[in-house]
Amino acid sequence: MKVVKFGGSSLASGKQLQKVFDIVTADPARKAVVVSAPGKRHSTDTKVTDLLISCGEQYLRLGEAHDLQEAVIERYASIADELGLGHDIIDTIRRDVDALLQADSAHPERYLDAIKASGEDNNAKLIAAYFQHQGVEAHYVNPKEAGLFVSDEPGQAQVLPESYDHLYKLRERSGIIVFPGFFGFSLAGDIVTFSRSGSDITGSILANGLKADVYENFTDVDAVYAVNPTIVHEPKEITELTYREMRELSYAGFSVFHDEALIPAFRAGIPVQIKNTNNPSAKGTKIVNQRDHTNGPVVGIASDKGFCSIYISKYLMNREVGFGRKVLQTLEEYGLTYEHVPSGIDDMTIILRQDQLEEQHIEQELLDRLKLVLEADEVVLERNLSLIMVVGEAMRHNVGTTARAAQALSKAKVNIEMINQGSSEVSMMFGVKAAQEKEAVQALYEEFFSMSTVPVSI
Amino acid sequence: MKVVKFGGSSLASGKQLQKVFDIVTADPARKAVVVSAPGKRHSTDTKVTDLLISCGEQYLRLGEAHDLQEAVIERYASIADELGLGHDIIDTIRRDVDALLQADSAHPERYLDAIKASGEDNNAKLIAAYFQHQGVEAHYVNPKEAGLFVSDEPGQAQVLPESYDHLYKLRERSGIIVFPGFFGFSLAGDIVTFSRSGSDITGSILANGLKADVYENFTDVDAVYAVNPTIVHEPKEITELTYREMRELSYAGFSVFHDEALIPAFRAGIPVQIKNTNNPSAKGTKIVNQRDHTNGPVVGIASDKGFCSIYISKYLMNREVGFGRKVLQTLEEYGLTYEHVPSGIDDMTIILRQDQLEEQHIEQELLDRLKLVLEADEVVLERNLSLIMVVGEAMRHNVGTTARAAQALSKAKVNIEMINQGSSEVSMMFGVKAAQEKEAVQALYEEFFSMSTVPVSI
Repeated sequence: MKVVKFGGSSLASGKQLQKVFDIVTADPARKAVVVSAPGKRHSTDTKVTDLLISCGEQYLRLGEAHDLQEAVIERYASIADELGLGHDIIDTIRRDVDALLQADSAHPERYLDAIKASGEDNNAKLIAAYFQHQGVEAHYVNPKEAGLFVSDEPGQAQVLPESYDHLYKLRERSGIIVFPGFFGFSLAGDIVTFSRSGSDITGSILANGLKADVYENFTDVDAVYAVNPTIVHEPKEITELTYREMRELSYAGFSVFHDEALIPAFRAGIPVQIKNTNNPSAKGTKIVNQRDHTNGPVVGIASDKGFCSIYISKYLMNREVGFGRKVLQTLEEYGLTYEHVPSGIDDMTIILRQDQLEEQHIEQELLDRLKLVLEADEVVLERNLSLIMVVGEAMRHNVGTTARAAQALSKAKVNIEMINQGSSEVSMMFGVKAAQEKEAVQALYEEFFSMSTVPVSI
Repeated sequence: MKVVKFGGSSLASGKQLQKVFDIVTADPARKAVVVSAPGKRHSTDTKVTDLLISCGEQYLRLGEAHDLQEAVIERYASIADELGLGHDIIDTIRRDVDALLQADSAHPERYLDAIKASGEDNNAKLIAAYFQHQGVEAHYVNPKEAGLFVSDEPGQAQVLPESYDHLYKLRERSGIIVFPGFFGFSLAGDIVTFSRSGSDITGSILANGLKADVYENFTDVDAVYAVNPTIVHEPKEITELTYREMRELSYAGFSVFHDEALIPAFRAGIPVQIKNTNNPSAKGTKIVNQRDHTNGPVVGIASDKGFCSIYISKYLMNREVGFGRKVLQTLEEYGLTYEHVPSGIDDMTIILRQDQLEEQHIEQELLDRLKLVLEADEVVLERNLSLIMVVGEAMRHNVGTTARAAQALSKAKVNIEMINQGSSEVSMMFGVKAAQEKEAVQALYEEFFSMSTVPVSI
């Protein structure tokens, strides 16, 4: 049994829906289909979800949003036309959007959440109708009816554990289940959405609940690349990687897959297969619990800008019980999250995302506060760092991976500002000046992927 | 003006005292002499401080400690005889020890502290008498009279800031000041000792108070070695290193100099010169605030066994505000101090000294507690790690030092369990299995010290 999820660009037009139909019906194991709202048809197009947000906001302000409402309906109508569907489905969608806009708006956040969620919900209805029109048994399933209950946090709902048992009962249904992504229902019966791109989360929850053999995630790229293609030309594709590797890569710049979405599949040990709707025969990338390590120690390299470091030194820091805790508590008081805290004997460095300080204009205040609370000798801020993650589960068995990485950076004249490698050894993190990020990533890619002995994809 | 401190082995016999006399009088700038208690004359000898501790403890138990008391007096008497001093000084010492043993023992800790401190105090009196006997103006100075006030923490006194101003007044005294190390007085007038080897601390405080040009510390080795001589045969000597380098080295196994003792000199920017009483013409090792980096990036390599790591992983750990703080707070609840906390995205490793867990038999309890408090996916203890510090201020300007170190370890087939390099870059820390410590240190020494381009001492 497979749960299949399609992203917005895979569902943007009638032509795309035909590909989806072909993919789903090509394998009888594809029993549950999770859908996003229609995405962009071309680069200057607007996603239905964005139209809905504008529409809801204008209605709240002016009590009408006729043009935007029509633009939404038009998107569905053009797909229905392209596929030769009757008008019934569009009438249904129009009534639904009308009702949502005219609903009680005493809680604007909740009101907007319901409008946003209709993008997926109505698309699921449309797609079920299309499958039926093609003579295939398919049913739209509403998340409330299916028992997908979530915490009451609009825009960042968390699945409630009992949902999994409810969803398991969907296995008894005949035909293909077409399920809207992105939202669930609170126990009080209100629609609550996941974080943005939350359809990936719904698919993962469904895969867990249905105890699927695999969770197929169809998007618009052939595979996850071993490195950012804007930094390295035509990089290798990754055919298989573990949850942990995916998570470490997605932390620093890889955005193919919504990393929070991995959790339900990860907890149930269900592999996630990323594939391309526009090229379904491509092998894609499989995310698994464990993999063979036949392809060299490194699976991918990711990097991200926008970090800064706060260096704190104090003579005999190491002897002070509670020093580190005081540092972290001070950060918490300012609502700051940190990424890493590498330390020497009498110094400690906090790596954090720079925008947190800039947005709040608290740089000087924070430095002064740290100096005061800790009675530190020195507190120094350094801006514009990039973090580079070199990721691969096999690194732990490989004496010398660190040496190769450091050597490659050294040859490229990149100074390593910081190294952080925990005992997990799934990843190695290098901090470099942002201005040297590109050279650094290129040098590391060259070292680990350009030799014929370490192919990542055949 | 120089403050000169002599360690116990430099003061163990009359013959040693003659060397001390020659050294002090060879340079008129040597105005203040800080002395330890007489140390060992040969490897099976007992230090006077240890005799005093046994003596005091037995007296507390049995109300008499005649033999031990005689053994103490005998040590001073044999020195006085060797130097041809009269009996007055020994009579003074005997009366002092008698009085201390018969003193009020209502507070045994305070009682023992006073007895311990007499080792240095009486030695200072003896040495002043010897200098006078040689026709040199020298005066024993009591720390109370000089105003060396400390916190009331027996065995771990901290100097009170006002002491520095009091000590400055000693500059007005004529002749050589002979000052006992190891203790000061509480504001209530009680003797309180520093931590063991605390004479180094007294010397450093005096150097700061007197605003000395240099603090000379005479011991029984020619210099600080670049690496542990039991691991590498006849290693190079370090002629100059910074306070920070010294501190990082002393953290992991270097014990030439009491590292807490560096603070007062460090705060006042006074260089510390380590020299050998038995070979005063040897260049020695100078500890300074800043140094030229003409000798390659690495100044020394230290290592220490007895560490363990606790690996904690939790999916999406990185998104949880307060996770790290909770970890450190749990350690604090158990009174545990940690050394480092390298981290990945969803994992964190705590490096700590193993004996803390073993002494308290809390290993399993701690792991269970961490798992519960953090709702962690995995909490795993790994024992028997060694930490290796590669230290050198010049590393920060040297692209490629990390690469060289990692390469050397890789060639020696040493697996790097952990790397921790903060943005200070004064040191690089490698965690390796204890069984590989020796190979690792040898390989690193070979890399950084064996080539003719990086001599440390000429």
